[in-house]
Amino acid sequence: MSEDRAGGVLDAVRANVRAMRGYVPGEQLNDPDIVKLNTNENPYPPSPRVFEAVRAALTGDRLRKYPQPLGDDFRRAAARVLNVDPDSILIGNGSDDILTILTRAFVPEGGLIASPTPSYVLYRSLAEIQGARFQTVRFTDDWLIPTTWPVNGANLTFVPNPNSPSGTVLPKLLLEVIGGYVYPSPLVIDEAYIDFADPPDKASMVPLVEYCRNLVVTRTLSKSYSLAGIRFGFAVAPPEMVRELVKVKDSYNCDVLSLAAATAAIEDQDYFRGVRAKILATRERMRPALAALGFDVTPSHANFLWCRRADRPVKPLYEELKRRRILVRYMNYDGYDGLRITVGTDGEIDQLLAALRVIL
Amino acid sequence: MSEDRAGGVLDAVRANVRAMRGYVPGEQLNDPDIVKLNTNENPYPPSPRVFEAVRAALTGDRLRKYPQPLGDDFRRAAARVLNVDPDSILIGNGSDDILTILTRAFVPEGGLIASPTPSYVLYRSLAEIQGARFQTVRFTDDWLIPTTWPVNGANLTFVPNPNSPSGTVLPKLLLEVIGGYVYPSPLVIDEAYIDFADPPDKASMVPLVEYCRNLVVTRTLSKSYSLAGIRFGFAVAPPEMVRELVKVKDSYNCDVLSLAAATAAIEDQDYFRGVRAKILATRERMRPALAALGFDVTPSHANFLWCRRADRPVKPLYEELKRRRILVRYMNYDGYDGLRITVGTDGEIDQLLAALRVIL
Repeated sequence: MSEDRAGGVLDAVRANVRAMRGYVPGEQLNDPDIVKLNTNENPYPPSPRVFEAVRAALTGDRLRKYPQPLGDDFRRAAARVLNVDPDSILIGNGSDDILTILTRAFVPEGGLIASPTPSYVLYRSLAEIQGARFQTVRFTDDWLIPTTWPVNGANLTFVPNPNSPSGTVLPKLLLEVIGGYVYPSPLVIDEAYIDFADPPDKASMVPLVEYCRNLVVTRTLSKSYSLAGIRFGFAVAPPEMVRELVKVKDSYNCDVLSLAAATAAIEDQDYFRGVRAKILATRERMRPALAALGFDVTPSHANFLWCRRADRPVKPLYEELKRRRILVRYMNYDGYDGLRITVGTDGEIDQLLAALRVIL
Repeated sequence: MSEDRAGGVLDAVRANVRAMRGYVPGEQLNDPDIVKLNTNENPYPPSPRVFEAVRAALTGDRLRKYPQPLGDDFRRAAARVLNVDPDSILIGNGSDDILTILTRAFVPEGGLIASPTPSYVLYRSLAEIQGARFQTVRFTDDWLIPTTWPVNGANLTFVPNPNSPSGTVLPKLLLEVIGGYVYPSPLVIDEAYIDFADPPDKASMVPLVEYCRNLVVTRTLSKSYSLAGIRFGFAVAPPEMVRELVKVKDSYNCDVLSLAAATAAIEDQDYFRGVRAKILATRERMRPALAALGFDVTPSHANFLWCRRADRPVKPLYEELKRRRILVRYMNYDGYDGLRITVGTDGEIDQLLAALRVIL
């Protein structure tokens, strides 16, 4: 067939999609020898109860039948842990699915999504796919929301807390003010990393959802529950908003094995606390060690550290580490760049520090 | 808080979403005693190799890490089975995810989706979520595409083949003409049930994808591979179109256990053929048995039968069967109604027929 025809069909793709570069996730190398500190995966396995639950769900009858559309068992379990109404929980195929559902529910073509920057670059991709405009506002130098917020006319605002790449959290009082009382349109607090905040209960906006009708909190089990592989996230939002969001999601967006795994994981809070404590302990020793090597390390409430330096470019360091089979994430926001380094096991961090000592 | 504020936030939901009723999937009752013939699940378990593959993938390291973004192992396996280029395969969290991705890639707000009717009612929901118009064209009385096709100005056209609820297939020559040479915009042939066509190879449009740059074929592993619980579907489309669709999908839309299950299932073609043969044999005996009970049964190339009757309303039959713990699907398209009955095991169909003999 002619090139003409091929061109013609790509013309059918919406202009906003054609123009996109597309979100590029962190490198996923399957080599088991690699020290992988680039995508904020948890270095520890999930709870043993996750394996039991998946094995129990692994029957012919469960696999051949459709799963629960709303994930009622998970909703009840998460509601108990978070002390919220089960009807305020929306399940998602990873929290990316939740962010997509929110975008489609609230943002028309030509609408506006707002987000602070530097932050999670997927927010821009979501706007691009939707054919919406995207407006960022720079964090202040100490990673606070600037006084120019909220953005006028935004249909939806994403605020990650803790933020990536900085790992910083916003003061709760500020969030309460913008979330509950001032904010003119839906505000999504993306709490993908909240379980690593110290203390987490103080930073989370979940308890405010029942008082703030425009507030949505999103969570993921990828990081703190070691389940990036099974794709499970959820939102906490007012039940009347959840009912609208359910119309937008795919009917069966979470599968039977993921639902079993997620339910077992969130029910095992003892295991969760043990893993969290180990990661926080490693994070505590990483920061001074990296600072001693000349990095400016932002104090982190997440399972990664944002590492910059004024004396030399960091991209060659990323490349040198990669050659030594250690992957970290080089991030560049219009010239503001740094290395985002995941908190791995103590052994992995020892390898990282040893390699950096040789390189630097 | 005031009702005022609650109302204000629902106002933020897009008008097209607020106005939706939302797609209502078939009833999912968890009672194991129920004879479930309402959602076209496969009555047989998946291949034993699926269980082996999931158990092999059930390791801490696989669960804690992100899965393959494009599902390379599955793509290679499916490409071998279908004799296509792996780069022409797009993986999805169920074929609903694929249909959503296609809608978002091709249909702007205010755009137009076309589909024949009576057909899969999700197509209308996809248009509603996207804020697009939806235009249906009635099938001819013998379930063919009417000569008024294609619909002028459609951004995307969905044609299920075999169709639901009828179970009918379109003559391949007709599809080739509309798909390859005449159709002015992307044409999606939804082959969710193609594996039950007799013979399937003759009906599928997959071999045409490499010649027709506007053609997308969608498949699911929910039905013929007994994997509704794990949510896995895929599209076969020109590689340059797949590259655009990848930008629209969530980065990690399929999880590591589903990918393992789907790959093992599609690789076990011997098991697949055995299950298919059993279902076709049961379908063959169901049709005359239901006809003998007074139903008009459309000859089916799917794993269900479309059963209507002129002598009495069928909704009370659905209700009577439900009281007897047998679920079938009552479907009503603006007054054109009938029962869509899944092909179950021989034992389940014996129970259905016995119940109908008592009721009628």
